[in-house]
Amino acid sequence: MAGTDIASTRADGSVRSIARAVDVLELFEVEHPTRTLRELVALTDLPKTTVVRLLSTLESLGLIADRGESTYGLGAGFLRWVALSQRMWEIGDQARQVMSRLVDTCGETVNVYIRQDLNRVSIAQVEGTTTVRSVVQVGVPYELARGAAAKILLTGASDRVLRDLVDTRPDLQPESLGREIAGIREAGYAVTHGERELGASAVAAPIVASGGRVIAALSASGPTSRFTADRVGRYVDAVTAAAAEISAVGLGSVEVFL
Amino acid sequence: MAGTDIASTRADGSVRSIARAVDVLELFEVEHPTRTLRELVALTDLPKTTVVRLLSTLESLGLIADRGESTYGLGAGFLRWVALSQRMWEIGDQARQVMSRLVDTCGETVNVYIRQDLNRVSIAQVEGTTTVRSVVQVGVPYELARGAAAKILLTGASDRVLRDLVDTRPDLQPESLGREIAGIREAGYAVTHGERELGASAVAAPIVASGGRVIAALSASGPTSRFTADRVGRYVDAVTAAAAEISAVGLGSVEVFL
Repeated sequence: MAGTDIASTRADGSVRSIARAVDVLELFEVEHPTRTLRELVALTDLPKTTVVRLLSTLESLGLIADRGESTYGLGAGFLRWVALSQRMWEIGDQARQVMSRLVDTCGETVNVYIRQDLNRVSIAQVEGTTTVRSVVQVGVPYELARGAAAKILLTGASDRVLRDLVDTRPDLQPESLGREIAGIREAGYAVTHGERELGASAVAAPIVASGGRVIAALSASGPTSRFTADRVGRYVDAVTAAAAEISAVGLGSVEVFL
Repeated sequence: MAGTDIASTRADGSVRSIARAVDVLELFEVEHPTRTLRELVALTDLPKTTVVRLLSTLESLGLIADRGESTYGLGAGFLRWVALSQRMWEIGDQARQVMSRLVDTCGETVNVYIRQDLNRVSIAQVEGTTTVRSVVQVGVPYELARGAAAKILLTGASDRVLRDLVDTRPDLQPESLGREIAGIREAGYAVTHGERELGASAVAAPIVASGGRVIAALSASGPTSRFTADRVGRYVDAVTAAAAEISAVGLGSVEVFL
């Protein structure tokens, strides 16, 4: 038993180290191509020595570039995955055009979410036209239990996925979640306010494969103040129509993975 | 002292876990978009339980997608870094056109290498026209002490980088390395056979910024059987001319990071 404990402690340490490394790398984004050590320490809430060690490890792997003066950027090592992740995960031009037209219609940020394991991830985004807008990042896993896109994805998930989700989330009540998903499946769309984040609302609808299987969710999201009763009907119409259109033209080569 | 030992053991474990996770992710490439568990175990030479744990951790972070039947692919999580790494590291169209013309001239695979820490990394590649060709991956760190491109990059490295390199590589003789670099700096190009890999040859020349600083190396590489005495003069001419041309038009926005 002691052996098992040591092994599982080691495994936990390994999981934690990798997760922390990803946490650091995630702080580099188009709006923040470089970060100072001070920022990284503040944003990760890790001890400075830990952040320095992570940066040094990631630098030796080519994933972080030391820019001098305690400033860091993403390393050229990421180029090894650019072509492959684009080829695997980017959606087709036709689907993207439908997304752009939806932004023109409703002004809100539009995303295509897929389920990965027990998370949801945006694989395509067209930003809204207003300055106050919903900010989610493409490629970042968000929770699968909250938000309109999550609920749509759950309408297409197997019983096993739902069980696993409920097992990891003691706050979820299986019966009420089951009823909610059945209702959303029947309605063909979901509207949520403040589920994922206070003040953030979303409307989402399913993107389906030719056999009718839900493979993704199309969502329009923004501040709750704009998702008013008199507008939400228009948003629901626009999102469900666009989702049907994307289902008809297809998401592109990514569909084989969904 | 016991405390320090425990801390450094933990740090080593952390470094090792992150390096192993990157080793696994590196096995996914355009030619191998998916891998079986069996392949991953064989190629990493790690215990199966370790590979399974790494995959599970990476899946929860969105970096691995479970495709069923013990088959895995790169997760959509990589999309979060695609736009930024392209914006930071991709070279400009003019430089890429010069690379393509060099491939037309010599038939060999052409790369632009930069130095990152104590490694060299290709940030751009145009593949050669023959079936037997040099295979290096864009974004993957290779050693900074061997190969023509490495030697060219060392002609632009500070004394401190050279000292650090020699410190980590007891097999390098500082004096002979120093003489070799001085010679290559004066010649303006490097030719190597079998330094990085048996049977692989390369010709490389410096890409310089407007102030004359070496910021990258342009290389043409392929099987030694084609880098014969009667052809190498032509290769050297073509590579040095192309490197001068790229120096004149610039590498693009990536130059601010070099």
